[in-house]
Amino acid sequence: MGDGSAAVLSALRFDEYGLVPAVAQQHDTGEVLMLAWMNRRAVEETLHTGRVHYWSRSRNKLWRKGESSGQVQRLVELRVDCDGDTLLLLVDQHGVACHTGRRNCFFRAVREGQLVEIAKPVVTPGELYGEKG
Amino acid sequence: MGDGSAAVLSALRFDEYGLVPAVAQQHDTGEVLMLAWMNRRAVEETLHTGRVHYWSRSRNKLWRKGESSGQVQRLVELRVDCDGDTLLLLVDQHGVACHTGRRNCFFRAVREGQLVEIAKPVVTPGELYGEKG
Repeated sequence: MGDGSAAVLSALRFDEYGLVPAVAQQHDTGEVLMLAWMNRRAVEETLHTGRVHYWSRSRNKLWRKGESSGQVQRLVELRVDCDGDTLLLLVDQHGVACHTGRRNCFFRAVREGQLVEIAKPVVTPGELYGEKG
Repeated sequence: MGDGSAAVLSALRFDEYGLVPAVAQQHDTGEVLMLAWMNRRAVEETLHTGRVHYWSRSRNKLWRKGESSGQVQRLVELRVDCDGDTLLLLVDQHGVACHTGRRNCFFRAVREGQLVEIAKPVVTPGELYGEKG
């Protein structure tokens, strides 16, 4: 209770899968890093531990961001939107947010009628996920 | 083709309702304004007109942001995430993004274990939606 999760959970309207989208934003620069999904337990674990947890829809399990890559997100502040169906997470991202090795996931943009890559990986997926050979 | 919508649509993976979440961010300040949903037509109309369109899940229709409130969003840049299942819209928001009259929708935050309001409306819903009496 002391961590605010009861209040947040009662304000949230989860979808039919028990999930809400959560936007992660770097707290000091304003960079939008990624969007992922949270269930009740991910909200609780995030507020309780101060480390961002999501629900992995592809792996169908709780996902402590950075658990395999080391690229953890420390929670700075959790916000709830007007309708209670979206979260905004102000975070401090260690390293890179994107599994491709880029700082954020939104590295393709429409420019002059083309979808172009606007950011390069700063680390390789091998470095992130350990191709230790 | 010239507006990039064909490239974007082929990069997107819509959900079972034909939608993707779209995060709107004020292009110059970095403020995250809101999250709403887009279908194929909303993406096309947004890129074609330069004014942001969403799909309203509550009204089940195309929604040109600001059509009733006047609080339009001009598109500055559209970005696609790594998995093609989320959009980031850099926009220039006229007035307020939130239907409550607040600048953005994320006006509730966990602070000291409580969910507290951190922003007040800058206009009333009556002013936004016209209680002209």
